[in-house]
Amino acid sequence: MFAVRLTRYQQLADELAASIRSGALRPGDRLPSVRDLRRQRGVSPSTIFQAYAQLELQGLVEARVRSGYFVRARHHLTRLPPDAALPNGRITPVAISELVFELLGSTRDVDVVPLGSAFPAAQLFPFEELARSGARAMRRLGPAQISGALTAGDESLRAQIGRRYALNGVPTRGDEIIVTNGAMEALNLCLQAVTQPGDVVVVESPTFYAALQALERLHLKAVEVETDPAEGVRLEALEALLKQQKVAACWFMPTFQNPLGALMPNAKKQALVQLLARYGVPLIEDDVYAELHFGARRPLPAKAFDQEGLVLHCSSFSKSLAPGYRVGWAAAGRYAKDVERLKMMTSLASPIPPQLAIAEYLVQGGFDRHLRHLRGALQTQHTAARTLIERCFPKGTRMTEPQGGYFVWLELPGGVNTLEIHHQAMAQSISTAPGVLFSADRRFTRHLRLNLGHPVTPQIKAALKLLGTLAKAQAHRNAQ
Amino acid sequence: MFAVRLTRYQQLADELAASIRSGALRPGDRLPSVRDLRRQRGVSPSTIFQAYAQLELQGLVEARVRSGYFVRARHHLTRLPPDAALPNGRITPVAISELVFELLGSTRDVDVVPLGSAFPAAQLFPFEELARSGARAMRRLGPAQISGALTAGDESLRAQIGRRYALNGVPTRGDEIIVTNGAMEALNLCLQAVTQPGDVVVVESPTFYAALQALERLHLKAVEVETDPAEGVRLEALEALLKQQKVAACWFMPTFQNPLGALMPNAKKQALVQLLARYGVPLIEDDVYAELHFGARRPLPAKAFDQEGLVLHCSSFSKSLAPGYRVGWAAAGRYAKDVERLKMMTSLASPIPPQLAIAEYLVQGGFDRHLRHLRGALQTQHTAARTLIERCFPKGTRMTEPQGGYFVWLELPGGVNTLEIHHQAMAQSISTAPGVLFSADRRFTRHLRLNLGHPVTPQIKAALKLLGTLAKAQAHRNAQ
Repeated sequence: MFAVRLTRYQQLADELAASIRSGALRPGDRLPSVRDLRRQRGVSPSTIFQAYAQLELQGLVEARVRSGYFVRARHHLTRLPPDAALPNGRITPVAISELVFELLGSTRDVDVVPLGSAFPAAQLFPFEELARSGARAMRRLGPAQISGALTAGDESLRAQIGRRYALNGVPTRGDEIIVTNGAMEALNLCLQAVTQPGDVVVVESPTFYAALQALERLHLKAVEVETDPAEGVRLEALEALLKQQKVAACWFMPTFQNPLGALMPNAKKQALVQLLARYGVPLIEDDVYAELHFGARRPLPAKAFDQEGLVLHCSSFSKSLAPGYRVGWAAAGRYAKDVERLKMMTSLASPIPPQLAIAEYLVQGGFDRHLRHLRGALQTQHTAARTLIERCFPKGTRMTEPQGGYFVWLELPGGVNTLEIHHQAMAQSISTAPGVLFSADRRFTRHLRLNLGHPVTPQIKAALKLLGTLAKAQAHRNAQ
Repeated sequence: MFAVRLTRYQQLADELAASIRSGALRPGDRLPSVRDLRRQRGVSPSTIFQAYAQLELQGLVEARVRSGYFVRARHHLTRLPPDAALPNGRITPVAISELVFELLGSTRDVDVVPLGSAFPAAQLFPFEELARSGARAMRRLGPAQISGALTAGDESLRAQIGRRYALNGVPTRGDEIIVTNGAMEALNLCLQAVTQPGDVVVVESPTFYAALQALERLHLKAVEVETDPAEGVRLEALEALLKQQKVAACWFMPTFQNPLGALMPNAKKQALVQLLARYGVPLIEDDVYAELHFGARRPLPAKAFDQEGLVLHCSSFSKSLAPGYRVGWAAAGRYAKDVERLKMMTSLASPIPPQLAIAEYLVQGGFDRHLRHLRGALQTQHTAARTLIERCFPKGTRMTEPQGGYFVWLELPGGVNTLEIHHQAMAQSISTAPGVLFSADRRFTRHLRLNLGHPVTPQIKAALKLLGTLAKAQAHRNAQ
């Protein structure tokens, strides 16, 4: 029940999408006609129509009446420009928390339009089934099993997690999986397992603010590495850093990076793992978005290429199945015992009821069906919101093109200040995640992360339009 | 529904128990006859019989046929002897974890007799009711409420916790309560909120090994303070330490201390809080056992006397209602915002399902009824196990006399090595918690913490007898 179903039309759509992204098919190009493609590939017309519909949904092509499908012209953020994006390689003691709390504290209000939120819409998740699974599992267990919470986590859940690794072709040892209080705890424990106060940790640029907060809390120093908005960390830049100084660990998100949405290709992931192995540097891999792929297959984690046990792979069900249940895990390779001990020392064990609910849900089947539904919904929302952003934001705005997840990273024209936009929007109960949250030295002043994980309701539409208007007003003011 | 019910016989029993403990009534003394007491106090014979039965249950008195009730002769550990117990005031960098993991790792096996465990028997807790409460609460909530897990915790649960503080006469501000992943996380977050690496923290002597582990993890230094086995930390010794050096915090367990079971009297708690306020030192108060009192009233926490917001009060439902649910909290006074931020940085928020299950259970009522049942069971087990220990352990063994909780701390005759006993017992699938776990410098080599939280089954009886036999063999060997 866990195998990925690859239909023909998905294969075809993925292939064409890759050609568009690589530039082999360029904006304005006409896609092959149904007749040609049918002859070339031996697929049925319905397969071709489905594939084209999928590409249209992804915003990659558009249908023109009586002319066929064409590759869309897009605002295409292929590369962050040197003026704002290149990290300086300087070691920065981190002090981001105040800013994060100040900016995000007010965004948790349910009346606020959640464009700055880090979670997709709650309606996308099967809470009723989970509650039923939980109740069923709790009834079946005796007191001793419920109270005897093991530090490493419930055995049935760990077995299910291990099974999914295996089905995705990622080798893990059963005993290296430690269940945690969401991926956040997994990442924090892994970071602590491989560092001492004062150590240097390499992070992406831009990077997820929670990584910066974790570094700050553990008295670590951040060094940011240049990160391609489409393909993730630049390995040459990383190697230069590794040569330059002693690095205790890397904390990267190679799949659908937050905030860029970048997806590191498999071959590059393998090269990354090999590079770090040469320097003996552990990789903390934050992989919470991988299940939310728009393509046909779940991207492999860097962990898949790890032969030294140096990759500490962290993930959770919070983004894919059960937000609020806070069930995450680390598959921590050679550091598994250390992570388990730190878990025991900091929170003893994770609560049993949410673990049982999820384990039971996984055993019953339905997770993959749910995921297909979730991915479809996210992709639809993504496309609709992007189209609106392209229409409403000022000329010169560029954005990333994630192939999964629910974030998009915008770069606004020079001189626009997204922190100012954030405050103006909050005054109208619309949250955003301004770029300054995503680096230790507050470099991304004209960047913005938007959450596209919510159905594009009239309220969301109005909010996106308002952001566009605010940005235009600033761009206009600066142009004068 | 939360008010403490103080019956007449409980009042009378408490009063007599206090006289016995203070020495006003001494071993061998006859208790007043029913007729005398009835005349003196105007209480009914049945009240007196109930009170005497209660004292008998507590192991404080014994009935002699046709003679009445007499104060029992007991092995009475009033004070840890200077040779082994007095802490040296030396600052110790902590490195206890290896030992803890080595000794306790193997004790979690369900086939092991759990005398070294830190939890009482699972059958004592209402897991079925909790699961029903959880299912009910989950059905009632919408997705947004389930997924919108707030860092500080579910509002309904925080309100219930606040209500219990109020009913116990402890003033708290609603917004200072942060729900955590068990008390363990609360304690760790509080410790981190008030310290920097390298700081000195005062702990009890002996102290709970988890406190030592937390200090170790945060690169803190421990200084142990002399602790009376009946009444907790000696304030003169504490003041001497405070005068001597800069102290960042104290981490104490003033009510039913682990491992001693010591209960600091109210007046002393007040004096402790005042002393620390004079030095501006925060008190992290670990208060997880308070609900497990054998006397009629829940002992007040030190927090009750805090006027400066310097007491960070940590507790949980893990020992009183729902082990395995991992629902704890901190009422962190002036540090509440810092603790909330650290919680957000380390685990974002606590899982919603266990919080809802407990909140719903508390709203429905039944917690106090469960607590009365639990306290009765623990007291019965305590008495039965103590009686057996007195009978089976070598001459010269002394033990503490906790008035609540489920631990007892034994001091064995000189030369007996409890670590050796631990290993011998583990070979027979019996766990213990040897004294070396309870100080940074492994001082308590002839001490032993035993868990009396399990029904005294034939298996437990046999295990206690075996421990006594092993101890006798060692004592005998040393005497030769």
